[in-house]
Amino acid sequence: MYRNFRIVPNIIFGRGCFNQLDQILDKRRTSQNDRVMFVLDEVFKGRPLEGRLPVRGRDMILHVNVDDEPKTSYIDELTARIKDASGLPAAVVGIGGGSAMDIAKAVSLMLTNPGSSADYQGWDLIENPAVYHIAVPTLSGTGAEVSRTAILTGPEKKLGINSDYTLYDQMVLDPELVAGAPKEQWFYTGMDCYIHDVESLQGTYINEFSRAFGEKSLELCHQVFLEDHEDHADKLMMASYFGGMSIAYSQVGACHALSYGLSYVLGIHHGIGCCIAFDYLDEIYPEGVETFRKMMDRHQITLPRDLTRGLPEEKMELMVTTALNLVPLWENCLGPDWQNLMTRDRAMDLYKKM
Amino acid sequence: MYRNFRIVPNIIFGRGCFNQLDQILDKRRTSQNDRVMFVLDEVFKGRPLEGRLPVRGRDMILHVNVDDEPKTSYIDELTARIKDASGLPAAVVGIGGGSAMDIAKAVSLMLTNPGSSADYQGWDLIENPAVYHIAVPTLSGTGAEVSRTAILTGPEKKLGINSDYTLYDQMVLDPELVAGAPKEQWFYTGMDCYIHDVESLQGTYINEFSRAFGEKSLELCHQVFLEDHEDHADKLMMASYFGGMSIAYSQVGACHALSYGLSYVLGIHHGIGCCIAFDYLDEIYPEGVETFRKMMDRHQITLPRDLTRGLPEEKMELMVTTALNLVPLWENCLGPDWQNLMTRDRAMDLYKKM
Repeated sequence: MYRNFRIVPNIIFGRGCFNQLDQILDKRRTSQNDRVMFVLDEVFKGRPLEGRLPVRGRDMILHVNVDDEPKTSYIDELTARIKDASGLPAAVVGIGGGSAMDIAKAVSLMLTNPGSSADYQGWDLIENPAVYHIAVPTLSGTGAEVSRTAILTGPEKKLGINSDYTLYDQMVLDPELVAGAPKEQWFYTGMDCYIHDVESLQGTYINEFSRAFGEKSLELCHQVFLEDHEDHADKLMMASYFGGMSIAYSQVGACHALSYGLSYVLGIHHGIGCCIAFDYLDEIYPEGVETFRKMMDRHQITLPRDLTRGLPEEKMELMVTTALNLVPLWENCLGPDWQNLMTRDRAMDLYKKM
Repeated sequence: MYRNFRIVPNIIFGRGCFNQLDQILDKRRTSQNDRVMFVLDEVFKGRPLEGRLPVRGRDMILHVNVDDEPKTSYIDELTARIKDASGLPAAVVGIGGGSAMDIAKAVSLMLTNPGSSADYQGWDLIENPAVYHIAVPTLSGTGAEVSRTAILTGPEKKLGINSDYTLYDQMVLDPELVAGAPKEQWFYTGMDCYIHDVESLQGTYINEFSRAFGEKSLELCHQVFLEDHEDHADKLMMASYFGGMSIAYSQVGACHALSYGLSYVLGIHHGIGCCIAFDYLDEIYPEGVETFRKMMDRHQITLPRDLTRGLPEEKMELMVTTALNLVPLWENCLGPDWQNLMTRDRAMDLYKKM
């Protein structure tokens, strides 16, 4: 049995294509009262990008804070605010990095599905189609713009809302929008893509579909992080798209699993968490880690160290449990015998080094 | 202004995934009376593939002849036959190579749009959504499974029905289905993909989106036609998909334009027509043609020659006119000054060599 999967069906790509968002939204506005909800990373508050949003009539801008990774409680609060203010919007536009894009996805879903977003953490639990939602990435690498998940930290777990309805209906891929990102954020987010390419390609789930996307994404990451190209922003945007597509039949692996533990227990952001974990995974991804270190050198990135020193035993155990609960990731990485290969002790040793 | 384009939103890929077609169709069958129309290349009549079609209840198999490339009159006739027999089917499944897949696309459109298919040859002339249609390629290379066109030969021209509605709703990509194709057909159809990669990548319209897809497709074609790989069928299927996607922002070029003339006037099939024309395009695509000849050598392909010898002047002129009417292809290939670079005389000289 193969997965029959859905992908984002509408794409616009090009420098300056953000200017066409107004026109794209026009088709969603069927009456005077229709409103659009712009979910904007609050880092853009008062910045030129906010001024360029095609806000009309009763539209609303929702500034979202992504200091912490998105929590289910935050999604529920935002959803309630929108419902109180206006009822169902005609479209939701998510503008920002992975967190902002995931918030917009989750809100689009929760506007049409009852209960708390925590109820839907898992696979295919969503019952009703979401409000039409559009991705406008301002950082490249997470693949949030193409993935069928909105990753949330809930009261019990960090786990995505995975469903066909989670997928965006439209992507607006404008490489100009990623120009202003701080170097570290650009690097860590890009590495999210690089690492999931390595994990996808080296995984046991790989097939020719995922290999074609993953190999091209990896090649583009090499060009972006190890060479000089004027159009590196365009390349990284494509790498992110292809990296996300590579996961269709494959999966991420050890690094993403360990990074989830770091995020859940220590609140470390996903991109940097992946980098921290990857640096200790020579045994599993020898070539990938070697190249990753070259990329770090070239961009003078220094990773934080000793994050787990002095952490209480129960927190360490929770980290291990969080990571090892991600069964498909380990199975992809190490095969059906993974539990004998990645024991709790081995995972604990890895975390102790970080 | 960038094109905001639609892509085939549902994909299943894998050896044997054809067996899941029944399950995919199940979701389209909402009542007992719903019927599915299988548009099957008649080469499969009585062959094992026909026996594997998930035919139920009032379903119909329509055997289509592709000795000639699809004509608008043939589409109109098939559409009338379906309407007489049953009214609107719940789904149309196109099984075969580029011609069969284009017939299924065109029929799906004409079941819901009035008049003759010839009325819709052009860009975005279709007004009503098509019947849900599913592509099952049994030959890889044309990109018909992903393209927004159904190429038809009408009373006045060879030109596609280009629209977002033309796109398939679902692709079933099963590399096992291409196993039985005759070598020449496999080669010529694969070269359609190889050539449109070269034309897309070398074109003036290229951007990073189309480059990423085109480069990977070209690399896969090299692997398939110049190396030995057990999974060459999987690779060529992905090459075809990526090649089709590469055209999103780019275009094909000189070779496809000249091949249209050969098809329109001499009835030469598209794949072999592309090969015939490409072999005389060293000046425009030097590297691409050199590699193409290596591929021909390796697979011991001998192209037909002297096809235009003795052809009446008016037919030669019609061929030139047909080719030069394809403005976007020439503009992509040679830039805005193309008319000075590809004069009628130069095109005529090329045709005279073929």
